Amino acid sequence: MKMAKTASNLKYIPFESFKIGQKQSFGSYEVTEHEIIEFANKYDAQFFHLDHEAAKDSLFGGLCASGWHTCAMTMSMMVENMDLHGRSLGSPGIDSLRWLRPVYPGDILSVHMEVLDTVPSKSRPNIGVVTNKVSVSNHKGVVVMEFTSKGIFRRAEGGLGLAG
Amino acid sequence: MKMAKTASNLKYIPFESFKIGQKQSFGSYEVTEHEIIEFANKYDAQFFHLDHEAAKDSLFGGLCASGWHTCAMTMSMMVENMDLHGRSLGSPGIDSLRWLRPVYPGDILSVHMEVLDTVPSKSRPNIGVVTNKVSVSNHKGVVVMEFTSKGIFRRAEGGLGLAG
Repeated sequence: MKMAKTASNLKYIPFESFKIGQKQSFGSYEVTEHEIIEFANKYDAQFFHLDHEAAKDSLFGGLCASGWHTCAMTMSMMVENMDLHGRSLGSPGIDSLRWLRPVYPGDILSVHMEVLDTVPSKSRPNIGVVTNKVSVSNHKGVVVMEFTSKGIFRRAEGGLGLAG
Repeated sequence: MKMAKTASNLKYIPFESFKIGQKQSFGSYEVTEHEIIEFANKYDAQFFHLDHEAAKDSLFGGLCASGWHTCAMTMSMMVENMDLHGRSLGSPGIDSLRWLRPVYPGDILSVHMEVLDTVPSKSRPNIGVVTNKVSVSNHKGVVVMEFTSKGIFRRAEGGLGLAG
């Protein structure tokens, strides 16, 4: 059980601190067969995510993680990074999500992000939207998943009130 | 623990059975506070997914599910539907994923899908790609999440071999 930070003790990154082209890499998530099967049992009960032997007959050649599980593991690394460096106010969504390669037990995943765009909100002067390209690689350096992510960030002078 | 279907006893939907404009609705997933917190503890440990009281101070006004958890619950309904009606060979990815409204404990989610496009593969004559618009609604009829999903399907005469 992780400690839940509350609204009052969180550190936010101001919108103004993001520059187009900025890059960062972080995370080291070891994928286990146990966790692949546990996630699949709850949310994605397809044989290639559940059964080591049967998965050999699948397109993937062996047991591999649900694509949504890879998203969840990636989010876990992103939240750890936010705990260190500060956070957004939330995300309206994701574009161009591609599961490029299977994620297997024993893979160690890491995240690479690059700022693609920064747009101040016209209707809400105290927030802005940052678009990031997110790439997730395994320990062999192979990119297994990519997406672009939009994050809502506080303007430096804005405060949290979103009215207006 | 659900029974894992194996490669040999699965039912596949042939690519040719999809027509642009076809719609289907399915699923009834009751969202619980317990499951929201359990998922968040593992994958998205932000206070508005973890702590009922603290979440009142968030943009969402109360404890709500991780967006990735909503994706996972949606996949669970999609796999149940595939178990009834047949399945794809997998998905290369997702576009235009939008978390439109918070998902709260007590919400009952359902899935609505519409076929947007069907494209036979040029390089692999035994498969085709179907693009679906996926909308997830709560029990009040409010759309909480939308995305478009690509699925790879067998051609009727294709078989499973993907070489060629």
